[in-house]
Amino acid sequence: RTMSYGKGNVFAYRTYLKPLTGVKQIPESSFAGRDNTVVGVDVTCEIGGEAFLPSFTDGDNTLVVATDSMKNFIQRHLASYEGTTTEGFLHYVAHRFLDTYSHMDTITLTGEDIPFEAMPAYEEKELSTSRLVFRRSRNERSRSVLKAERSGNTITITEQYSEIMDLQLVKVSGNSFVGFIRDEYTTLPEDGNRPLFVYLNISWQYENTNDSYASDPARYVAAEQVRDLASTVFHELETPSIQNLIYHIGCRILARFPQLTDVSFQSQNHTWDTVVEEIPGSKGKVYTEPRPPYGFQHFTVTREDAEKEKQKAAEKCRSLKA
Amino acid sequence: RTMSYGKGNVFAYRTYLKPLTGVKQIPESSFAGRDNTVVGVDVTCEIGGEAFLPSFTDGDNTLVVATDSMKNFIQRHLASYEGTTTEGFLHYVAHRFLDTYSHMDTITLTGEDIPFEAMPAYEEKELSTSRLVFRRSRNERSRSVLKAERSGNTITITEQYSEIMDLQLVKVSGNSFVGFIRDEYTTLPEDGNRPLFVYLNISWQYENTNDSYASDPARYVAAEQVRDLASTVFHELETPSIQNLIYHIGCRILARFPQLTDVSFQSQNHTWDTVVEEIPGSKGKVYTEPRPPYGFQHFTVTREDAEKEKQKAAEKCRSLKA
Amino acid sequence: RTMSYGKGNVFAYRTYLKPLTGVKQIPESSFAGRDNTVVGVDVTCEIGGEAFLPSFTDGDNTLVVATDSMKNFIQRHLASYEGTTTEGFLHYVAHRFLDTYSHMDTITLTGEDIPFEAMPAYEEKELSTSRLVFRRSRNERSRSVLKAERSGNTITITEQYSEIMDLQLVKVSGNSFVGFIRDEYTTLPEDGNRPLFVYLNISWQYENTNDSYASDPARYVAAEQVRDLASTVFHELETPSIQNLIYHIGCRILARFPQLTDVSFQSQNHTWDTVVEEIPGSKGKVYTEPRPPYGFQHFTVTREDAEKEKQKAAEKCRSLKA
Amino acid sequence: RTMSYGKGNVFAYRTYLKPLTGVKQIPESSFAGRDNTVVGVDVTCEIGGEAFLPSFTDGDNTLVVATDSMKNFIQRHLASYEGTTTEGFLHYVAHRFLDTYSHMDTITLTGEDIPFEAMPAYEEKELSTSRLVFRRSRNERSRSVLKAERSGNTITITEQYSEIMDLQLVKVSGNSFVGFIRDEYTTLPEDGNRPLFVYLNISWQYENTNDSYASDPARYVAAEQVRDLASTVFHELETPSIQNLIYHIGCRILARFPQLTDVSFQSQNHTWDTVVEEIPGSKGKVYTEPRPPYGFQHFTVTREDAEKEKQKAAEKCRSLKA
Repeated sequence: RTMSYGKGNVFAYRTYLKPLTGVKQIPESSFAGRDNTVVGVDVTCEIGGEAFLPSFTDGDNTLVVATDSMKNFIQRHLASYEGTTTEGFLHYVAHRFLDTYSHMDTITLTGEDIPFEAMPAYEEKELSTSRLVFRRSRNERSRSVLKAERSGNTITITEQYSEIMDLQLVKVSGNSFVGFIRDEYTTLPEDGNRPLFVYLNISWQYENTNDSYASDPARYVAAEQVRDLASTVFHELETPSIQNLIYHIGCRILARFPQLTDVSFQSQNHTWDTVVEEIPGSKGKVYTEPRPPYGFQHFTVTREDAEKEKQKAAEKCRSLKA
Repeated sequence: RTMSYGKGNVFAYRTYLKPLTGVKQIPESSFAGRDNTVVGVDVTCEIGGEAFLPSFTDGDNTLVVATDSMKNFIQRHLASYEGTTTEGFLHYVAHRFLDTYSHMDTITLTGEDIPFEAMPAYEEKELSTSRLVFRRSRNERSRSVLKAERSGNTITITEQYSEIMDLQLVKVSGNSFVGFIRDEYTTLPEDGNRPLFVYLNISWQYENTNDSYASDPARYVAAEQVRDLASTVFHELETPSIQNLIYHIGCRILARFPQLTDVSFQSQNHTWDTVVEEIPGSKGKVYTEPRPPYGFQHFTVTREDAEKEKQKAAEKCRSLKA
Repeated sequence: RTMSYGKGNVFAYRTYLKPLTGVKQIPESSFAGRDNTVVGVDVTCEIGGEAFLPSFTDGDNTLVVATDSMKNFIQRHLASYEGTTTEGFLHYVAHRFLDTYSHMDTITLTGEDIPFEAMPAYEEKELSTSRLVFRRSRNERSRSVLKAERSGNTITITEQYSEIMDLQLVKVSGNSFVGFIRDEYTTLPEDGNRPLFVYLNISWQYENTNDSYASDPARYVAAEQVRDLASTVFHELETPSIQNLIYHIGCRILARFPQLTDVSFQSQNHTWDTVVEEIPGSKGKVYTEPRPPYGFQHFTVTREDAEKEKQKAAEKCRSLKA
Repeated sequence: RTMSYGKGNVFAYRTYLKPLTGVKQIPESSFAGRDNTVVGVDVTCEIGGEAFLPSFTDGDNTLVVATDSMKNFIQRHLASYEGTTTEGFLHYVAHRFLDTYSHMDTITLTGEDIPFEAMPAYEEKELSTSRLVFRRSRNERSRSVLKAERSGNTITITEQYSEIMDLQLVKVSGNSFVGFIRDEYTTLPEDGNRPLFVYLNISWQYENTNDSYASDPARYVAAEQVRDLASTVFHELETPSIQNLIYHIGCRILARFPQLTDVSFQSQNHTWDTVVEEIPGSKGKVYTEPRPPYGFQHFTVTREDAEKEKQKAAEKCRSLKA
């Protein structure tokens, strides 16, 4: 049966966390590491264990770890954490929880980053980056999930993935949506030139879960790099649909990062409606927000897909040369 | 692999849907049916099928049913729907989708109700209920989920559940939380008298899925009845924890509705902090909103639990008489 | 110059506040008073005074009342408050603030109610209203504003109004919108039968501010009564526009409550778009959410308007009889 | 009496608006202009005029410009607009409205920007800025307000201001809050080192309204420049309070931009609570979200204040040299 309990919205902010350095850069991104001067995370922790059944059926709280105590546990461990990433922090907390409370059998930890971006500062006649003042961003952010369970004397990680959430990108031209089924239910006109506007959640899993913690930062995949890869592929591709766009983004991510096994997408279509199609003397147009219904896609791109795509590209090259 | 696509936020409002009558009343609730003069539903539909793979890998839209067409399909079918419930509507739409598009293999439909409550009207020197004016409620509401798939020539329902979401109840006394583990991570004081404030999502599954559509309304379980049961149990119980509260609510629901197999809970604790403990001349207190972290529970109460609870209650009676 | 500071989101919940009884009932509403077993209010307090200028210009905090202290002040005074309404509470707090801190010159207090509705409870084989369990409503709610200032040795109330906010009403028939200007910018078709959906904020001012505190409850105007009046007028009127609807609601409120000087409206139009115009065998239709832009109106109905409307109605009667 | 009506949430997106160039740069900011490849604005327009009274009192729509038509008017004019800023767009629309509809007497237009930021693109082995792909930002944004009225044959601008909204900045050290009043209502401890976290809305008014439209871009004040000035002053100042911080930001803005008359602030305090004060081996700490109540300030800094501050600074220099 379903049985678990825990704490949500455990906000924890840490100053001067150890910086993340030594990541492997990719051509599509200028990302080279994180100062970690201010990091924020919103943690949810969910605990399971047979020992908790009496707290439900009999109102017996003897074995209940108060969720308020879980909150203290998590926040204090952000102080003692010596790593550099949220993935590593969740791994640390999961082990410490299961080590501390022997009657906890399973734990699921979710950490959603609250991003802070350094602001400019003008000092000594020079414009540089402040080490003191940061803007809290409400744009796209990382999130990671870790599930661990006790089996005998060991702790096994049963699931780990990292994610970038809520990346909202619009491309002003080079997108079409034509050739779909037209029947009695179809009112959507074909569109050879739409300003495709997508919301993207992109998640990835590693071949070796240990890579996610960035103990070896050269094997770590940063959400900032995934964001920049998605942006470049969107820039390059004449998109026939969001379906095909995310397929190509997924293949590119897997090509760049051999340490990953798969990339999953939850994408949404929020493309605007056109109001003014032609403006004399300008190549611009005017658009507006559509009605609320939005299309979405859920899709996983596998290492196998990436390999096929690589071969297709190789064959194209050969036939071009021939 | 994960592969699906669909439409979210398909709002559809229908006037003069067939009223729901003939439900079996329960002692804890005055609910006797729904006029259905104005009903609203927010539908999400998610489609799967091997045939859609080329739309992802090759940008081939030949077999793509545009999500805009799905939206038209759903809204038009709310017009032709002749039943009385959202559960029944999702069942109708699922079958019509799979019948219409042979290359769709699976469909998941979610319908979240937008409740409308009749307002009072003073007419001909009498205060009664208006048949014209309704208030849109932003309080608790129903939601149901249906998953169907094609297997050969038949359509199988693989999952169905109904739910009441976001019911926010506070009980001013008769709640405690004591006896939990106290260790180095514990700062929460014991509380013998807290104004327990819970957010409840309660979902239920039927033994026979057909009961959910209300073709036989006497076998239908209404969210309004579940809400009133939850409220009465909360009223009755000296709660030692939310865990025990939801266990007893679940057992009561299963006792009242033998046609259900299980009841699941997602509950949250939003109890206030105390500011003024004693007010001279009043039994009242002053409280305020706590910090953001909140406790939550996920738990399923089974028919087996309900039976055990029935027996425990029976034994208590016998020992009292003896 | 603008100079003030204060505290927002001061949530305060009070149990067992003195009940509101003795209100004068009106035909259009069953409202007869409030138990006040659980009341909640979200208070904002804004303070002004020349003495605070150095805190801005010189960083001199000597005369600064910390906003955290203002929060304590407000919450503690909800404990000592002996009245029955939020209007009265704000009046009490305003006086206590200006009496306690002689260097505060002006204060603006806003109190937005957090409504709690008693739930049903089945006890001793009878279904009644629980005195323990309440649902927190996210529907329409009261709000009141009070501005006070020190002038010499006295405290003058410079503004007071009460309000009901966010009342969302839909009327399924009996509404039209025709006859408006049609020119090159007009694309909206005339509509002889639209399901008019309005969001209403309605505020009122008393001739004598003291009436708002409910010291004499028979002179108090309750938001629940205003809500029910709005609903009945909406029910009665064949509406040609929201403009005319709010005019008639305002005149009715002023007719019912001679103690008020004027009624002001902030209304919004959120009427749905029609998807299916005709359903064989039903008088129903199917609608959906429109695009985001919404029409709004700001209008004050005066006692003078109400008098004119009364005379118009009297003349109509006379001519009908003649 | 209050009487107006209009349209809210008129979203309009324009591609390839004329770029903003020729702004006067300031040392504290790298801002040098805007490409305007994708601009978005959320417009509210509110119309007043005696001629509209019959639409309220008599339901006579003869002179009513449907708000849906206002929406068309605004969106089409974003197509014909030849300027470079939202301020200029509102000025254009206000004049066109009053010129087109002679019975409109007053108009208030609000334009809230929806910012788009160019994403990186890797093209031809080089990482540069994409001209096609943009991220929609949900961080701070511009907003401007314009009120115009007809007086005889002319149109007078009665109010104009520009604003940057919702800038959320945290400074990790160099902030204190001490020396405030301590009495029976005070529980807040003094804090010599708090991670001050402010939300800022900053608005400015020009001596000559025409400067706001950027017809002469060298006299235009950009929200991006105001944001960077606020950030640098925050970086520099050992803040004794938010009050003093905004005073100094205001003086700096007025010093940099002689074309402005005053700068107004709406600031909020969202500083975290401290959870872990000391971390061995690190200068970091751990913080968490506080309870909901937040302090706020409303303050206008005048040209006079800026002059005084300049003199104070000059005197300090002289006394240091002496």
